[in-house]
Amino acid sequence: MTTKEFHAPPGLKGVQVADTSIGDVRGDEGFYHYRQYEATELVRTQSLESIWQLLLDGNLAGSPQSKSFRQQVGQARILSPQIMELLGAIGASTERPHLGGLAALPLLLPGARPTLDIGPTERRHDVLRLGAALPTVLATLRAVQAGREPIAPDPTLGHAEDWLRMAGSHVGPGPTKQQVRAVETYLSSTVDHGFNASTFATRVVTSSGADAVSAISAGLGALSGPLHGGAPSRALAMIESIGDPVNTKDWVLKRLEGGQRIMGFGHAVYRADDPRSLLLKEVALGFDSDLAHRAVEIEGRILAVMRRWKPDAVIVTNVEFYAGIVLHLAGLPPEMFTPSFMVSRVIGWGAHILEQAADNKIMRPSARYVGPTVAR
Amino acid sequence: MTTKEFHAPPGLKGVQVADTSIGDVRGDEGFYHYRQYEATELVRTQSLESIWQLLLDGNLAGSPQSKSFRQQVGQARILSPQIMELLGAIGASTERPHLGGLAALPLLLPGARPTLDIGPTERRHDVLRLGAALPTVLATLRAVQAGREPIAPDPTLGHAEDWLRMAGSHVGPGPTKQQVRAVETYLSSTVDHGFNASTFATRVVTSSGADAVSAISAGLGALSGPLHGGAPSRALAMIESIGDPVNTKDWVLKRLEGGQRIMGFGHAVYRADDPRSLLLKEVALGFDSDLAHRAVEIEGRILAVMRRWKPDAVIVTNVEFYAGIVLHLAGLPPEMFTPSFMVSRVIGWGAHILEQAADNKIMRPSARYVGPTVAR
Repeated sequence: MTTKEFHAPPGLKGVQVADTSIGDVRGDEGFYHYRQYEATELVRTQSLESIWQLLLDGNLAGSPQSKSFRQQVGQARILSPQIMELLGAIGASTERPHLGGLAALPLLLPGARPTLDIGPTERRHDVLRLGAALPTVLATLRAVQAGREPIAPDPTLGHAEDWLRMAGSHVGPGPTKQQVRAVETYLSSTVDHGFNASTFATRVVTSSGADAVSAISAGLGALSGPLHGGAPSRALAMIESIGDPVNTKDWVLKRLEGGQRIMGFGHAVYRADDPRSLLLKEVALGFDSDLAHRAVEIEGRILAVMRRWKPDAVIVTNVEFYAGIVLHLAGLPPEMFTPSFMVSRVIGWGAHILEQAADNKIMRPSARYVGPTVAR
Repeated sequence: MTTKEFHAPPGLKGVQVADTSIGDVRGDEGFYHYRQYEATELVRTQSLESIWQLLLDGNLAGSPQSKSFRQQVGQARILSPQIMELLGAIGASTERPHLGGLAALPLLLPGARPTLDIGPTERRHDVLRLGAALPTVLATLRAVQAGREPIAPDPTLGHAEDWLRMAGSHVGPGPTKQQVRAVETYLSSTVDHGFNASTFATRVVTSSGADAVSAISAGLGALSGPLHGGAPSRALAMIESIGDPVNTKDWVLKRLEGGQRIMGFGHAVYRADDPRSLLLKEVALGFDSDLAHRAVEIEGRILAVMRRWKPDAVIVTNVEFYAGIVLHLAGLPPEMFTPSFMVSRVIGWGAHILEQAADNKIMRPSARYVGPTVAR
């Protein structure tokens, strides 16, 4: 260390590590935006592909460009027979989805060049390829592991629908329009959300000049962490475990007294309602299922218990509580919940790679040495 | 963003992002240490395995434990026939060494569990396995790509010697003792060096609770960046390109005038001589080769030209200038220079994973939104 350093708070809370025009989260207001647009408004009115293009290129394209962007994404979902064969071997040799994903990413761009050595067009190509192909990779790995024949992507479909078709447990006529729109709403509302750990890790790796494969790998790894992307299936399991809403109070108190976390509640940034949670609650209730109604009842009771338990804390429902319900009602099995988050957030990582590479300085922070005195 | 945030300088320069007792770099003094010991002193007197154990466990073990640690490392270098077969396919499908490494890491620990869900013993097992097996992975991938039969690890050898044997271009009697010691000195002197981009990326990923495979993947990806681990072979190529030292001034000025970097000079932290560079210069001169003597002559001339070119800047020779020469004299081909750095630094990443996991808070910084005004 050298003199005149700044000691950051734990977890770098409140430390602005970059300038960005991709978006922001205003925790106090319960508001987040993509570029200059309110995110939830975009999610309601735009396709996933339009939002993707907005994040990458900075503007909401009219229909002609959007159509061609959708086609690019559709084509980039297709994997070669060689990769499909290797995915079979990788699927048989790994257990958790992100581990297979980490093993597969380099195969998607085997000649990936450092972002610093290439121009913006090639960078955009690289992040688009990785973001578009990730769903095919994750769905194929899962099929291999479950002993099923993988479903090939259909480049004529929307990205959300194709993910649901490849990853879902649908048989026969396939997903309904409502299910497709539910998954699209989930994916669109979670593509980007400030400088969370995975987005930040992606930017740190990019800052060394590394290629897009390396940067996206870091994001995928970080997202796999239980403190970050690991909770949607646990929140659904909790609701199923509680069963009748009248059991909520006893169930929650027992865990709070045992020092356990309650999944789906609390957020690092939001001090007001998480707008993603409000949106996904609406989507869940649109299905008019018993599960959705029970979830709303249980949510209210959990909030009441937790707020009485910690009167000084700000307790809000986070995105994970309703995410699991929406993905379940759309027909995705719980083991595809975290992969769905990966399919979504990889879109944001791509935009952050382009932004970081365009005006880069290697991230080389410092630390405070607190070990035994050094003998010299 | 919320109110009362701190805007970090570009690259997080001077921002202490953690407390650590693994070591530190005192840039102003030209000094760095591992735990409480001067690093270069340890490198001169201890084996790579002793330093590895010091970083992981916090103490310099006496000979009995060291012997068993060396045996553990040796055993963990061995890969199963299944992995060896998959490495064949991965090697044929990737081009740069870290891409193959990224694809292979998950296979080394296919059931890797989140660091947050396991205890210190299991974590230590995971990081030791990954650190020990990486040389075998990188050497095997390279052999496959070059169409050679891979050389199997020999668990009875020291880690440095075995790396040189697997990765080197030796035929017949193998490396000399001097060559082995030269590689060990290089590896030992570069295992850790403050919060550089790869170490920091490793800690960011770990902070989400992710497993060791994910964390090490982030380090490997960051190290592959040309601003971080990409330069040793370029510094050697520069010396070869200059040829006779009398050509130095013209060669360097031509590049400086063209706005190009001179490889092997300048450092983010050191304001005095880089102690690693001084150590490796000694090692290089120990070979008494024409190359080493020319390098010393060229180094002096480059420093003179650069200091006249930018009189206000602090110009020091960094570790990369002599690293390439030492690795070359030890018998490693240039394409194994960056992999050698990976083989070394993965040891430090392991220690940082253990430290981060032992007292963790997820890293979730902030950013300053500078895009168009948001309509609400």
